[in-house]
Amino acid sequence: MKDMPQDALAPRIVARLDALAAISAEAGAITRVYLSPEQARASALVLGWMREAGMSARIDAVGNVIGRIEGPVPGGPALMIGSHLDTVRDAGRFDGPLGVVTGIACVAALMREGVTLPFAIEVVGFADEEGTRFATTLIGSQALTGALAPDVLDRTDADEITVREALHAAGFDPAAIGRAARPAGAILAYLELHIEQGPALERAGLPVGLVTAISGATRLAVTLTGEAGHAGTVAMAGRRDALAGAAACILAVEARCTPEPGLVGTVGTIQVASGAVNVIPGRVGFSLDLRAPEDRQRRIALADLAVTFSEIAEARGLTLERVVTHDAASAPCDPALMARLAEGIVAEGYPVFRLPSGAGHDGMAIAPVAPIAMLFVRCRGGVSHHPDEFASAADIEAGAQVLLATLRRLVADGLSGRPHAT
Amino acid sequence: MKDMPQDALAPRIVARLDALAAISAEAGAITRVYLSPEQARASALVLGWMREAGMSARIDAVGNVIGRIEGPVPGGPALMIGSHLDTVRDAGRFDGPLGVVTGIACVAALMREGVTLPFAIEVVGFADEEGTRFATTLIGSQALTGALAPDVLDRTDADEITVREALHAAGFDPAAIGRAARPAGAILAYLELHIEQGPALERAGLPVGLVTAISGATRLAVTLTGEAGHAGTVAMAGRRDALAGAAACILAVEARCTPEPGLVGTVGTIQVASGAVNVIPGRVGFSLDLRAPEDRQRRIALADLAVTFSEIAEARGLTLERVVTHDAASAPCDPALMARLAEGIVAEGYPVFRLPSGAGHDGMAIAPVAPIAMLFVRCRGGVSHHPDEFASAADIEAGAQVLLATLRRLVADGLSGRPHAT
Repeated sequence: MKDMPQDALAPRIVARLDALAAISAEAGAITRVYLSPEQARASALVLGWMREAGMSARIDAVGNVIGRIEGPVPGGPALMIGSHLDTVRDAGRFDGPLGVVTGIACVAALMREGVTLPFAIEVVGFADEEGTRFATTLIGSQALTGALAPDVLDRTDADEITVREALHAAGFDPAAIGRAARPAGAILAYLELHIEQGPALERAGLPVGLVTAISGATRLAVTLTGEAGHAGTVAMAGRRDALAGAAACILAVEARCTPEPGLVGTVGTIQVASGAVNVIPGRVGFSLDLRAPEDRQRRIALADLAVTFSEIAEARGLTLERVVTHDAASAPCDPALMARLAEGIVAEGYPVFRLPSGAGHDGMAIAPVAPIAMLFVRCRGGVSHHPDEFASAADIEAGAQVLLATLRRLVADGLSGRPHAT
Repeated sequence: MKDMPQDALAPRIVARLDALAAISAEAGAITRVYLSPEQARASALVLGWMREAGMSARIDAVGNVIGRIEGPVPGGPALMIGSHLDTVRDAGRFDGPLGVVTGIACVAALMREGVTLPFAIEVVGFADEEGTRFATTLIGSQALTGALAPDVLDRTDADEITVREALHAAGFDPAAIGRAARPAGAILAYLELHIEQGPALERAGLPVGLVTAISGATRLAVTLTGEAGHAGTVAMAGRRDALAGAAACILAVEARCTPEPGLVGTVGTIQVASGAVNVIPGRVGFSLDLRAPEDRQRRIALADLAVTFSEIAEARGLTLERVVTHDAASAPCDPALMARLAEGIVAEGYPVFRLPSGAGHDGMAIAPVAPIAMLFVRCRGGVSHHPDEFASAADIEAGAQVLLATLRRLVADGLSGRPHAT
């Protein structure tokens, strides 16, 4: 970092990421799950940084850390900059905290420039995005928009502790969780900076990229049933081999998705029931994870694959079952807000590289109530959710300066409560 | 069985199969493994049936049950009829015992006809063919030919009991196991009747079939290694998906084996290392079981598949490892002995349907020291190693009459110790 200018933002951002990384449930690893003592310590640290930056700061009813600088009308609508403070187990130090810490740094820099805000600005560290502890994601951002399903409070962790019990144990009132919900119109727009968690920026040789949408995702559990048999005694022509059928389906997913930009399909798990070296597989289950930036694109691909899977099953004398285990709509980024981020990218001297986010983010929960946009920062090898996760200080600086340039423009243009473009 | 003639052999054979099926380690299932108390009880029962048929009968040093009728020269070479008395866990009642019990019934019928034997006849119930207990097959027949590897005595069962200890506990002397080995030339020829364990005879609509060879088998453990990644963030074009590579290999096995009669290839197990719905598979292991009646055919197919697998791996940026986990040569049946069995089939009014045995049998161990031939009896649905395993009394009768007709011809022709055709 010795080549950074005096007003560089990255040195402090990196130092704060290091400080947060040191707060973990496991020595030598980073694990900070929802409603844990580690999360309380991290939240307290972030609260202090927000106040140091001149914000009022609080922890809301669900555990989100919120810093705020008022605009001309106290309590008025706010431009929100956010990401999350929770982590997966044995995580990297950038996924989530980078957006929160950079948000604080940019707001502090903006304030140092002495600008007059035409609206409030908030920085939010969401309490649960990963869903590590309770296997349900986006608790923090969903509570903030009032979209949290009440039955989430009954979800349990590995020790059979409910969200309700964990809230109580962490000093929150489960009955008051609704107070985290912000009123309609409170969020003017939502910006999030995040590491890419994929290799596209690295391959493009660029430090930052403009997200077009958070891809929707559908997950299927597929089961093919044929007929088990002796590997030696059943001729090839008489077989109804469920694994050979699954293999044909896996290659069909690849063939359908590869030519189409943005569309990705993955078979990540496969199981042969009662599998043995010398037994023809009679029943095979596999998963399909299909994502696309546009819902229509995903729906068409799903329909095509449903036809292809049926054809494969029929041709091979197999029965096919498909169960949708997960289905989340795409969250398209707001074109006007994207245009402002693009201006910020250009102002900092970078080409505007557009890409969808195949991974989920807090913006998915905010998109139904406010326009969202996201800036990706290059991460080494596309590696994330792993101790090797890494974004360089130079790239962090680039991302922070783009966000700051964008904030300057939004402040200068006096962005008003424009309806959310859908 | 009410339509059977008075001299039908099947009623007694079926009754004896039922009696053996009642001897099991598990109530309501058939499980009779090597050197178990159940095996001792079954052996005692079979000894009695052999003596009732006019044979001298004994249990040899490894546990095989051997009944014998002397020929003109006491202790001279014998025509051997055999199969096994041990079972897999939760087995059917035909796999193995059918050949032993039918052999006894046919020898008894032959003796009733008052023939003069030009050679001795033996019926053998082998003590271990399945390898259920010690995960090593053909202990009984290998000991009988002197081919049992000494280190087999050190193999252990699930309770860490060695073959040596189990022999001792069952009243055998592990140091004397070599006494089970028959001297060179003692076996004139070997005949085995067995259920098909496959669907070919059922599809052909025939009760019996003539085995051409016991297929050789090679088993591989194949590992493909690519690069794990996030199912949402890595574009299709940048992937090195080990499971997609495995799928291509599985279809390649099918494509290579299907057009070639007798050749069968099966991928029976597959594992995705650290598999998750939302992770691109980075490493996948799968098994390949390849069998063919001719060794050359199997070797060529293996070599072709090795090239294909390498091409698939290279095209996909995957690394490939292949380990041979099992390799057994084919045991071709003796043409002259097959011709006698074929005459027996024709004499009983059936067409001669030839098929390889994809499953292993005791004849594999006998083939290096004597000419072998096998007769298959149709089994319902090709199902074996399962409680649903079934051969009808009518088909058992057909098989027994073919074996008896064959024995009559062999006795009449005075088969002498012809060298084993290879």
